[in-house]
Amino acid sequence: MFQEFEVLTDPRNGPIRLAALRKELNDRGLTGFLVPHSDEHQCEYLPAKAERLSWLTGFTASAGSAAVLEDKAGVFYDGRYTLQVRQQVDEKAFTPVFITDTRPEEWLAASVKKGDRIGFDPWLHTAVEIERFRKALAEKGIAELVAVDTNPIDAVWPDQPEAPLGEIIPHPSELAGLSSEQKRLQIGEILEGKGEDAVVLTLPDSIAWLLNIRGSDLPHTPFPLSFAILTKEGRLDLFVDERKLTTSARGHLGNAINIRTPEEFAPALADLKDQVVHLDPNTAAERIRMALDSAGADIVKGRDPCLLPKACKNPAELEGMRTAHVRDGGAVSKFLHFMANEAAKGELDEITAAKKLEDFRIASGALKDLSFDTISGAGPHGAMPHYRVNTDSNRPIKSGELYLVDSGGQYADGTTDITRTIAVGEPTDEMRDRFTRVLKGHIALAMARFPAGTRGCHLDLLARQPLWEAGLDFDHGTGHGVGAHLSVHEGPQNISKGLVDVALKEGMICSNEPGFYKEGEYGIRIENLIIVTPAIAIDGGDRPMHGFETITLAPIDLNLVDKSLMTDAEVDWLNTYHARIFETLAPDADADTKVWLEEVTRAI
Amino acid sequence: MFQEFEVLTDPRNGPIRLAALRKELNDRGLTGFLVPHSDEHQCEYLPAKAERLSWLTGFTASAGSAAVLEDKAGVFYDGRYTLQVRQQVDEKAFTPVFITDTRPEEWLAASVKKGDRIGFDPWLHTAVEIERFRKALAEKGIAELVAVDTNPIDAVWPDQPEAPLGEIIPHPSELAGLSSEQKRLQIGEILEGKGEDAVVLTLPDSIAWLLNIRGSDLPHTPFPLSFAILTKEGRLDLFVDERKLTTSARGHLGNAINIRTPEEFAPALADLKDQVVHLDPNTAAERIRMALDSAGADIVKGRDPCLLPKACKNPAELEGMRTAHVRDGGAVSKFLHFMANEAAKGELDEITAAKKLEDFRIASGALKDLSFDTISGAGPHGAMPHYRVNTDSNRPIKSGELYLVDSGGQYADGTTDITRTIAVGEPTDEMRDRFTRVLKGHIALAMARFPAGTRGCHLDLLARQPLWEAGLDFDHGTGHGVGAHLSVHEGPQNISKGLVDVALKEGMICSNEPGFYKEGEYGIRIENLIIVTPAIAIDGGDRPMHGFETITLAPIDLNLVDKSLMTDAEVDWLNTYHARIFETLAPDADADTKVWLEEVTRAI
Repeated sequence: MFQEFEVLTDPRNGPIRLAALRKELNDRGLTGFLVPHSDEHQCEYLPAKAERLSWLTGFTASAGSAAVLEDKAGVFYDGRYTLQVRQQVDEKAFTPVFITDTRPEEWLAASVKKGDRIGFDPWLHTAVEIERFRKALAEKGIAELVAVDTNPIDAVWPDQPEAPLGEIIPHPSELAGLSSEQKRLQIGEILEGKGEDAVVLTLPDSIAWLLNIRGSDLPHTPFPLSFAILTKEGRLDLFVDERKLTTSARGHLGNAINIRTPEEFAPALADLKDQVVHLDPNTAAERIRMALDSAGADIVKGRDPCLLPKACKNPAELEGMRTAHVRDGGAVSKFLHFMANEAAKGELDEITAAKKLEDFRIASGALKDLSFDTISGAGPHGAMPHYRVNTDSNRPIKSGELYLVDSGGQYADGTTDITRTIAVGEPTDEMRDRFTRVLKGHIALAMARFPAGTRGCHLDLLARQPLWEAGLDFDHGTGHGVGAHLSVHEGPQNISKGLVDVALKEGMICSNEPGFYKEGEYGIRIENLIIVTPAIAIDGGDRPMHGFETITLAPIDLNLVDKSLMTDAEVDWLNTYHARIFETLAPDADADTKVWLEEVTRAI
Repeated sequence: MFQEFEVLTDPRNGPIRLAALRKELNDRGLTGFLVPHSDEHQCEYLPAKAERLSWLTGFTASAGSAAVLEDKAGVFYDGRYTLQVRQQVDEKAFTPVFITDTRPEEWLAASVKKGDRIGFDPWLHTAVEIERFRKALAEKGIAELVAVDTNPIDAVWPDQPEAPLGEIIPHPSELAGLSSEQKRLQIGEILEGKGEDAVVLTLPDSIAWLLNIRGSDLPHTPFPLSFAILTKEGRLDLFVDERKLTTSARGHLGNAINIRTPEEFAPALADLKDQVVHLDPNTAAERIRMALDSAGADIVKGRDPCLLPKACKNPAELEGMRTAHVRDGGAVSKFLHFMANEAAKGELDEITAAKKLEDFRIASGALKDLSFDTISGAGPHGAMPHYRVNTDSNRPIKSGELYLVDSGGQYADGTTDITRTIAVGEPTDEMRDRFTRVLKGHIALAMARFPAGTRGCHLDLLARQPLWEAGLDFDHGTGHGVGAHLSVHEGPQNISKGLVDVALKEGMICSNEPGFYKEGEYGIRIENLIIVTPAIAIDGGDRPMHGFETITLAPIDLNLVDKSLMTDAEVDWLNTYHARIFETLAPDADADTKVWLEEVTRAI
């Protein structure tokens, strides 16, 4: 299995561990410490070694942080974790703080005493983040931030896991589409064009993309943890534990890449004295900025130059993604068939369903990992957009309820991310109305035409308008970028209300996932991945238009569709999509599934 | 008449005046000078005294600038003025530079010689603008920017007009809705809440709004030119030529306002030593920033705090705007009736039509001014979104063509801005197709529902989607803010592709003006003003939704509408809108107009 459902933390550990940390801080002359949920690379998933927040506080949210002072400690959470934080932390030791009301830096500035020395581990915070804390404390003017050399939590965590040593393997060039050398020269040219000598790369997926390698240090994200320095000439130093390198990876990297130890990274930064060095202050560790600064490098702040080329998939990557989605769509369809037969019997629960879905993906023979922990939500659990089932929360799947499943797979040729919502038994009219509005939004985005320069926030409305008309909305983004056998969430583009100044370009892949959530009752989300198509001329038009190609293939539950709410064009889209699913998946389906598939993809 | 159609500049003056300026610069030890199209207040319309760009170069664009060096001079223009710049300037003296390719600061940095001293008048540039020039020259490192005390163009412009002395009158409180004192205390509280002591106000419409006064220094924009300093306690110093103050204005301002001479403004800035002073770097003159800086004030950069409260009209302002639009709609409808009878005869031209429209507005007895120079474009002239007719360009209005007219009035109770496009004779199928798509976009925006927090850029797509579907678009914003008997273009909100981070709030007024332009053939634009309505609950919804109330009232040409392209909901909107026009305007229309009005507002 690629996911666990056990409850792994216990609020009773918090007070003891907090006391140990405070003693350690006192020994070091510190009165406080910042505890982010992050590693040196700002990864979405952390190695076990970096799970300091949950070790200390018990809080296992994917986003959150803590700040420890002598007499109080705040644990910062967002709207997704309102209930969870109170279940997981001991409130006598930690004060839950809702970040929408109080930002961590505001809480800190309001809580410090005169003379406080607040430590932070500069490897775990970005430069931008520390700048915010510094500013808040400077305005207060009574306490200071102190960068520590070693993390004090590590000093009091006796059984802290070791850094992972996952194998590094080459990513085949027929899937990558471009050689690493081509990519390095391309990024080198970007640096050259801006008058920059080098870039320090800290994001593991940028490095994996650039070198055409994949790794297994982390759950769900197939890249190795490493740092790199790339020069404008395309020369690259890779700082990585050599034990991770397979023979094939060594051969693949060859002599072009200078492989160095992680310990050599900090000295290598000092060697960039007098160079013009590009650094992404939103993703690079403050420690790196400090090192470049004290080395006398001329730091140019800007977005990681790999992000945009990585986001715009080339034809080989797109073909791999399409193939992965046919395979994944087959597995998901088998699961939906299974659910259609079994769910209404009342013998399944959220965990057995998630495991069953994983089994179907494993049976494809090509699954490397899930692309994230499956969101398997029955009834009211579906109304929590980021619900993660565990043995405590596990709920039976009952007739008369909706079941929402958001999941994805990592395959060598691509990464998938799909959400389907199904009616177990007979849905209510309201459920059908809401589902159809979500579907109309999904279809509007899928059918969109738009000129060059259009940002995701310009299109976001398409996915919401049918809900807005009824006084409804959903409180998450409509779409995130997706990597090609890389991270299931990647930038720089997205489709949301956020004013992200990145145009949607040919080859970018986004999710299309409008939803609707009725607290305490049910949740609905329909998610497919879509590729930005080339801008093509339209008959009679005066400028070419981009569009989207939907690559996710699994039936949408017609039991939840109210055709009377749909336009002819929307019905056409749905029928065409379903016909394509049948045509693509039926040849490889078993006889039983084929019969079912024909029924559920029928034209309406 | 409130507008002129004469050609007032002559390219032949350019070389002589340029030589005189260069001599003056040389006498002052300068090798160059920046010539913006602006005054001390960054107004859209300039007093004649500030028309230095057109005096020097002949170029009369509403946006543009020049940079003079010893051996060359660049005149910077945007896409609207590609033809005009070449007609108006002598290219032997001035090089037209297209700003989309080369920004003025880039041109300057690429053109300067070692040791160049480039003068600029710090009263005419914003702090942000000068920062850009400084940065570009600093990177080059061979030339410097020098702020001048007096403008060298003024020294060589013998018959330069005097500063205007337009009368200042009170704006009645029944139209303003709030007293000046209430407004001053409101803005004072905003300052207090941010820990600021005072704000320097430089935008004449902010000051006119804050003090409930109106003026007549400039064409089309009913505010006096002045500066003001407001403290957090709500005390205000107004720096204005006392000769402009009518007795009623003196009485209105009373003792609460400290009236001081314009000459006292600079010393008053020096008095802000050690104060925390709010300044808007995007609109305030660099000279003011310099004065505050050298006085030792603590400058906090931020948006003019009057902009948002001014943009959110109160009920009295909204009622005035509605009344003004009924009056203005009556005048425009009479004009459209006149055009329906006369245009196809072929005896009208763009100027006679514009004058006729102005006459109908004047006949209302309430017109204070036009709100901008009328855009009166026949046939291919309609394809230039900002076309401004003069005696040289004037074109007959011919059958078989489209005629586009974009115009507005200033009334004591409100400001209007309306565009209608009419078919003269029989339109082609393509014209009807394009017009209907523009209309569909217009209606989609007019009918929109949206939750709190929605920005204009989120809704912009609505106005474009029917064009995008056909491979078409228009290259201007969809909507701008409009003042209440103030500027016809005001911020901070807009509806466009630009990522403007300002939510649409109750009471804001925007234009809704999608268009389509076929170069060399015809232009289409349909413009109404819309008010953001309060967020109201929708039956069955879970959150309140804003919408728009359309206040502009004049028929949309049904000869150009292809009903087969429209949805039922769109047809309903159009029929309801037309019924409302008839109901509102018919009672005051003469018998002839009433018959016509009934015909052109018929349900389709």
